[in-house]
Amino acid sequence: MSEQEVLVNSGSSGNVSTLSWLAKADLDCQTVEELRGKLKYFFMSPCEKYQARGRKPWKMMLQFVKIIIITVQLVSFGLSNEMMVTFKEENLLAFKHLFLKDYKDRGSTYAVYTKHEVHDHIDHIIMRYLNLQNVTVGNHAFETVNGVVTPLSLCQEFYRHGNISPENDSFDIDPHVEKGSIEFDNRAHSGRIKVSLNSDAEIKVCKEWTVSNSNAVSHFLLIVLFDSLVIVVCLLSLVLCTRSVCASVRLLLEYVWFISEHHGTVSWSDRMQFVNGWHILIILSDVLTITGSVLKICIQSKELTNYNVCSILLGTSTILVWTGVMRYLGFIKKYNILILTLKAALPNVMRFSTCAVLIYISYCFCGWIVLGPHHENFRSFNTVAYCLFSMINGDEIYLTFSKLRERGSMVWLFSRVYIYSFISIFTYMVLSLFIAIITETYETIKVRMPEQRRCTDRAGAAGQQQKQQDGMVFSELQAFITTCKNHPTFGTYKLDQEPSSYL
Amino acid sequence: MSEQEVLVNSGSSGNVSTLSWLAKADLDCQTVEELRGKLKYFFMSPCEKYQARGRKPWKMMLQFVKIIIITVQLVSFGLSNEMMVTFKEENLLAFKHLFLKDYKDRGSTYAVYTKHEVHDHIDHIIMRYLNLQNVTVGNHAFETVNGVVTPLSLCQEFYRHGNISPENDSFDIDPHVEKGSIEFDNRAHSGRIKVSLNSDAEIKVCKEWTVSNSNAVSHFLLIVLFDSLVIVVCLLSLVLCTRSVCASVRLLLEYVWFISEHHGTVSWSDRMQFVNGWHILIILSDVLTITGSVLKICIQSKELTNYNVCSILLGTSTILVWTGVMRYLGFIKKYNILILTLKAALPNVMRFSTCAVLIYISYCFCGWIVLGPHHENFRSFNTVAYCLFSMINGDEIYLTFSKLRERGSMVWLFSRVYIYSFISIFTYMVLSLFIAIITETYETIKVRMPEQRRCTDRAGAAGQQQKQQDGMVFSELQAFITTCKNHPTFGTYKLDQEPSSYL
Amino acid sequence: MSEQEVLVNSGSSGNVSTLSWLAKADLDCQTVEELRGKLKYFFMSPCEKYQARGRKPWKMMLQFVKIIIITVQLVSFGLSNEMMVTFKEENLLAFKHLFLKDYKDRGSTYAVYTKHEVHDHIDHIIMRYLNLQNVTVGNHAFETVNGVVTPLSLCQEFYRHGNISPENDSFDIDPHVEKGSIEFDNRAHSGRIKVSLNSDAEIKVCKEWTVSNSNAVSHFLLIVLFDSLVIVVCLLSLVLCTRSVCASVRLLLEYVWFISEHHGTVSWSDRMQFVNGWHILIILSDVLTITGSVLKICIQSKELTNYNVCSILLGTSTILVWTGVMRYLGFIKKYNILILTLKAALPNVMRFSTCAVLIYISYCFCGWIVLGPHHENFRSFNTVAYCLFSMINGDEIYLTFSKLRERGSMVWLFSRVYIYSFISIFTYMVLSLFIAIITETYETIKVRMPEQRRCTDRAGAAGQQQKQQDGMVFSELQAFITTCKNHPTFGTYKLDQEPSSYL
Amino acid sequence: MSEQEVLVNSGSSGNVSTLSWLAKADLDCQTVEELRGKLKYFFMSPCEKYQARGRKPWKMMLQFVKIIIITVQLVSFGLSNEMMVTFKEENLLAFKHLFLKDYKDRGSTYAVYTKHEVHDHIDHIIMRYLNLQNVTVGNHAFETVNGVVTPLSLCQEFYRHGNISPENDSFDIDPHVEKGSIEFDNRAHSGRIKVSLNSDAEIKVCKEWTVSNSNAVSHFLLIVLFDSLVIVVCLLSLVLCTRSVCASVRLLLEYVWFISEHHGTVSWSDRMQFVNGWHILIILSDVLTITGSVLKICIQSKELTNYNVCSILLGTSTILVWTGVMRYLGFIKKYNILILTLKAALPNVMRFSTCAVLIYISYCFCGWIVLGPHHENFRSFNTVAYCLFSMINGDEIYLTFSKLRERGSMVWLFSRVYIYSFISIFTYMVLSLFIAIITETYETIKVRMPEQRRCTDRAGAAGQQQKQQDGMVFSELQAFITTCKNHPTFGTYKLDQEPSSYL
Repeated sequence: MSEQEVLVNSGSSGNVSTLSWLAKADLDCQTVEELRGKLKYFFMSPCEKYQARGRKPWKMMLQFVKIIIITVQLVSFGLSNEMMVTFKEENLLAFKHLFLKDYKDRGSTYAVYTKHEVHDHIDHIIMRYLNLQNVTVGNHAFETVNGVVTPLSLCQEFYRHGNISPENDSFDIDPHVEKGSIEFDNRAHSGRIKVSLNSDAEIKVCKEWTVSNSNAVSHFLLIVLFDSLVIVVCLLSLVLCTRSVCASVRLLLEYVWFISEHHGTVSWSDRMQFVNGWHILIILSDVLTITGSVLKICIQSKELTNYNVCSILLGTSTILVWTGVMRYLGFIKKYNILILTLKAALPNVMRFSTCAVLIYISYCFCGWIVLGPHHENFRSFNTVAYCLFSMINGDEIYLTFSKLRERGSMVWLFSRVYIYSFISIFTYMVLSLFIAIITETYETIKVRMPEQRRCTDRAGAAGQQQKQQDGMVFSELQAFITTCKNHPTFGTYKLDQEPSSYL
Repeated sequence: MSEQEVLVNSGSSGNVSTLSWLAKADLDCQTVEELRGKLKYFFMSPCEKYQARGRKPWKMMLQFVKIIIITVQLVSFGLSNEMMVTFKEENLLAFKHLFLKDYKDRGSTYAVYTKHEVHDHIDHIIMRYLNLQNVTVGNHAFETVNGVVTPLSLCQEFYRHGNISPENDSFDIDPHVEKGSIEFDNRAHSGRIKVSLNSDAEIKVCKEWTVSNSNAVSHFLLIVLFDSLVIVVCLLSLVLCTRSVCASVRLLLEYVWFISEHHGTVSWSDRMQFVNGWHILIILSDVLTITGSVLKICIQSKELTNYNVCSILLGTSTILVWTGVMRYLGFIKKYNILILTLKAALPNVMRFSTCAVLIYISYCFCGWIVLGPHHENFRSFNTVAYCLFSMINGDEIYLTFSKLRERGSMVWLFSRVYIYSFISIFTYMVLSLFIAIITETYETIKVRMPEQRRCTDRAGAAGQQQKQQDGMVFSELQAFITTCKNHPTFGTYKLDQEPSSYL
Repeated sequence: MSEQEVLVNSGSSGNVSTLSWLAKADLDCQTVEELRGKLKYFFMSPCEKYQARGRKPWKMMLQFVKIIIITVQLVSFGLSNEMMVTFKEENLLAFKHLFLKDYKDRGSTYAVYTKHEVHDHIDHIIMRYLNLQNVTVGNHAFETVNGVVTPLSLCQEFYRHGNISPENDSFDIDPHVEKGSIEFDNRAHSGRIKVSLNSDAEIKVCKEWTVSNSNAVSHFLLIVLFDSLVIVVCLLSLVLCTRSVCASVRLLLEYVWFISEHHGTVSWSDRMQFVNGWHILIILSDVLTITGSVLKICIQSKELTNYNVCSILLGTSTILVWTGVMRYLGFIKKYNILILTLKAALPNVMRFSTCAVLIYISYCFCGWIVLGPHHENFRSFNTVAYCLFSMINGDEIYLTFSKLRERGSMVWLFSRVYIYSFISIFTYMVLSLFIAIITETYETIKVRMPEQRRCTDRAGAAGQQQKQQDGMVFSELQAFITTCKNHPTFGTYKLDQEPSSYL
Repeated sequence: MSEQEVLVNSGSSGNVSTLSWLAKADLDCQTVEELRGKLKYFFMSPCEKYQARGRKPWKMMLQFVKIIIITVQLVSFGLSNEMMVTFKEENLLAFKHLFLKDYKDRGSTYAVYTKHEVHDHIDHIIMRYLNLQNVTVGNHAFETVNGVVTPLSLCQEFYRHGNISPENDSFDIDPHVEKGSIEFDNRAHSGRIKVSLNSDAEIKVCKEWTVSNSNAVSHFLLIVLFDSLVIVVCLLSLVLCTRSVCASVRLLLEYVWFISEHHGTVSWSDRMQFVNGWHILIILSDVLTITGSVLKICIQSKELTNYNVCSILLGTSTILVWTGVMRYLGFIKKYNILILTLKAALPNVMRFSTCAVLIYISYCFCGWIVLGPHHENFRSFNTVAYCLFSMINGDEIYLTFSKLRERGSMVWLFSRVYIYSFISIFTYMVLSLFIAIITETYETIKVRMPEQRRCTDRAGAAGQQQKQQDGMVFSELQAFITTCKNHPTFGTYKLDQEPSSYL
């Protein structure tokens, strides 16, 4: 037995004292067995809990319900946005064609270069604005649909700006109904004036729409109701999850107290096993969804307009919720291998990512400084970063090569060395090492899995030895729990049960 | 012998009773040997059947003939379509240039924005339509070729539409010979009217072509004849395959009856071995080809016009038929390894695909909601899906980065995190794990193959043990069949023959 | 010893008789030793031959000289072509701008659609042609450079075509000096006339250039001289290589005769070892280079004009010659592993390529038939093939998705399934299996290499056994050669020498 | 003990004599122990040195400080350049629009084709130049901002060129303040004149800016001060690194002297272990940074203008400095595996790269010669090189296929074979072998690492044997150092300590 003990402890030397103490202590008393049972039950998966005590996996079902209603909410939100954005887009385009002289759709930057052109453009904008009712196709339609004489008020609007001098090349046309703000950008004084047109008219128009239409009102109420349902479900899930976290903390304290009473200490890795990453993920996604849904209701009732914050909250929570489904796939054995592989490979992948990012950033800096003045794609640091990232993944390589302006000089040679070396390093070295890491991890985990099964049927030191050598180290906590299975003696506990706590 | 038996049964514990029963039963009687022989013959490949009984592989030859004639049919179909489509395309383009004012080939969306423009365009269309004979180049040529005075009838056509008001911005010009339908799309009332032109003239023109030309008639007959040949061959293949499936079902029933008579049960995995996946594939492709060919004949004789259904049927059947060739490659040993690898890796690949698709869909939803209003590629869910899919495979990355409209805001930051994280996860984690799965499967299968060969020459418990540990589990069915080889005693059957039933 | 023999023969059962015969025969006689020596020397690498007999590797040096002069020839050829092509391009572009009305550089297809436009264009061409001298910038320069009054003769040229009718919409302008041939393509009668302009003026101009310039003549002679040098060197290499091949055939015959005299037979795999693939590669590249160089001299002396054949011959030979350098890298141990890996993986890669190509072709057919009428990239079979090929490699995916014309129908759904499934299969299954094949081969070869070295220092049946099990099977030929090393007894020959014959 | 010695020496036969000598020599004397201690300390990492003698890692901290200030310098440099380049760009674009007739932003090559056009363009340029003050938007702003009457001097400038004849189609407009140099390129005499416009005005403008603004002066001083700080820090780092290199050389000489006194020789691989690659990297980057910073100060004080050299020096040094951070990551165990893998795989990767580059270059030559005249992407050797490189990485494949001008000929067929074969070879064979090399290296290193740890706890010949077979060969130097750990007898030294000298 002494030999076996040494083998068990070969992994972490700190275990020796505690385990031998565990072996010596009187482990058959009532309290210990109770704690053991609690811990064992705590580390079970929903399915095992169901098998053990017949407890139905209500929480799991709640999560699935949550996923469905969140997705429904998102789809309806997305579809309504899609329609609005298309309208916004076409409206803006129509305004550009109406107000900007000789505007072309897929042209280059729309800009003017001479004084004459500036005056011409401003005159054109004023004339078009005055005659808007007679000229436009879209607003005419608006009039007949709403039945309100809005165009009249539109006509009475004039743009308010005192002087059009080159020193102040920006002026706003600010009508009541639609804000058609056209900006002449001459900040750089480089002899080129960029012209841009922005429109903020949509939300006001939407407001009148929803008021004037009784059908839309009921539709609006339905959406708010559904959002409230989402909030309620998420709150429920949040409460249940928080309760589970609290329970696990209580159990942890109980275990720590028990161990410390017997003059032992609980290592940090053992303490971390009480923290369920999936619970934290669910809590996070619930908080995001609730905040997002509240914001959504506010936006739909025209209280708030920060659409972006709302969409980012809902979007991020969706990624978290769907990723959470992997937890339930992990309960199935065959999926578990894959998820375990990803989990096991993650630390090494992150570590190597650090190295790769270091080289990547240094290349970004170098490219920005050296090629910035000669190459469009290397103009700003952000541009360099995504250009290089695209090149790693096999995009924009040809154009990056051919876009270099200067030819036949030192910079040209540098750019060749720079691009060839960068792509070669990242495509052949970095990508391959990522593949190597994950391939190796997968093989290790694949090999370990059946070995555990095999060990069940075979006894003897030979098998155990090999297993220990494979790096399967048992934590104190696992040892404590597993002891309960075959309690008479400590020496015969089985090493080979499924480490369910990993899930 | 008892030790060996345990080793054999270590894989699936359910086998123990049956195998020991098989060993005890009187297996030398006539009936058993007959069934055994049938089963053995059933699981042979065509080549082995030829070697065993000298049966020529007629069915295999039929399949090859089928592949050739189906391909010929497809090529002739494709070539004739290609010609028609080119004509259709150029005709449409010519119409656009003739009827639409200032139309440019590779321009942006063709649209009008002011009332004046709308009236101008409609006037232009009417004028052009009236003067079509004098203006066009193409129709003039048609006239002289066909020798029919079609242009006269064309000239007498007027477009029929009562009122051109902005409320009803869509009107059809519906002549006798050619339907030149021009649509002014103003549904969204956004002040922009998209103009599109569709032409459905082709099929009528084709009809006159084929009628007026005696050479074309014989060509048409030839095609119908060839299509009929395809149908006949496919019917034959279908009948033969169905017969094989029936035979296998009959054999299965016989085996099940035999086993149940001896108080055994046949497991589902054993039953599934009687189902030949390739037969189902052949039957499916035959049904698709026959339906497609019948439709094709109908289309060519101008009975039906649903070209799309026909082409999808024929196209899908082609993929199936060509994939079926892999079966015959699998009869060659060295190819077998590769096909077995793909087959063995498939379940894990599918499993992991599920996980990957989960994350992928969650990213799609998130991108659609958050980036939809700010980015062209994220406008609709479908667009998001294929944009993200393209990015995984290294396309459109640079443009996706640079197309984002809004800059310097929270959305901009979100988009960077979103795109970088998505591509990194899918390029480095997911792709690598796919590679890992297939690499591991290939190595496992490669290692197992020569081991089987080696075992032939070596006897002894050591080799057997190792083999059993490698996971080579023999099913009851295989055990039953292989027993027949060296019948005197059960203990000496060879474990190492080629598992031909897998093919 | 009998046990060892069995192990040796476990690979190929056909060896047993011959090897035992070899062991029994009187192998110490003079003739046998001579043949053995010859064979041994034959299978040595140049370096080993130098070490063995001090023979300087003249042939190897000749090959390196050949590579250098072929590359020099190619570079000079390429540079002169580059200049000519640029001139040709700009000239064609200038002609297009001069003769074609409103021609734009990067525009879409240049085409006319109405009768009026056709007449206008033809008038414009005639007018421009008559006034060419006064209008053009380039020809004016030609005149002053050559000192010949060519423009006068140019002016007197008229285009010769009788009638410009839509039935015969193609006419040639055929002047003396430059053939400016403009074609109006109206074959499809689709109402659209494509206009294309081709120019064949270059070669005539070149001729006059070289004649009028004495410097150019000497330059021309230099090139011809260098080409002749290339021909001579290649002839020498060809002769030497052919001699080696003859010698190997003679040795083969001698060996076959010797074996057959002792009532043995030489297997085909043994016979194939006498064929050196590299020699065949050298002979092929020499023949191509000589033919290409002869053609090149003819072209430069204006005898022939089939530039394309010449360039294809020279280009292909260059690939072969440079690939041949790998042979010499293979003489270095560490490079050998890599080259052996590629060589060993090749059969499996080819086998799997067959499978992949089957699926690829079936997808091509399917895409052509179904998506052809709806998608630009799937118009012809050739286009489908390279579009799909690009997609496997991560190009054009996004555009292929978004180019589909029809939306919301069955075809749209089919196209999604088609593209997603195709890319997934080829990116995740096929590419991964290629990686798996090569990774596995590399590991096998890497493991085998040091094992061979290790075996040198260790004796005993254990090591031998393991080696045999690894699949290292010795051919009869190798056995015969290796016997000569330690001739007294057959049982102690070393299995572990470098298989130099593989190079 | 004799058996063990043999095992140790099985790796390199040259070690035998020295090691046995080491065992026999009286190693316990004072001098030996001192040298041993020095060597041991020399090969320690900073952290180990801190643990051993409590020496704080000042040098390491200096390196981190250096990285931070170099990055800050680079960022400020980059940001100021970015602003300048944007101004330069827009100014050039404005000039093009002002001076070049009918210039369009994203058009094709801007060129003229007829005499009339040439004269028109020149007239336009002259007229615009004379009326610059009245026409331009940008210069007008300049006037009011600077408060200097620069436009007056601008107006008085005339372009100086005598004759505008086609023979001398290039002329310069050379004003005082701005050099607007427009070139008409007619060298090839192909009838097409390319027009390009370059502007060198920026640096002069900048000079006046900085002088006229007191705020700018202090900003300028701040930058120079910071650059000086960078120079000082780099000089310090350079001196410290050079001192370390000197110390290591001194220690090497001492060791060589000691060994040679005992009639031994030091192998080159042992000598190379004294050379620390990281030190050389730091020295190189320091020299580059110092030179670059000095140049930068000169540029900012308007002494020099070779911006390109400066930026290349600073950019390259940044890559080196950031790559140097990997050294410190290597001190962490888990990172070490990854860095060791890259280091170990590098030789094989380089070797295989040589092979790949050979094939790549041969394809480049072939493509240049054959496809050059027919394909835009294959025009020059440089273009071919980066087109093929892009294709390997999955870019520009589709366009390369579709850009081929000639169709239906031998060249078309050749191009298909060429592109398909090239991409297949490089995507499936070459990339896979790179992955294979790195995967295999990673697995080897991963396996070796825990083995070393395991060996600490296990003794016995069995473990040692296996280890030796794995290729772990100990150099004489390492043997010498490790002896000092457990000095009484030689036979019991531990083989398993961390090879820290590799870092």
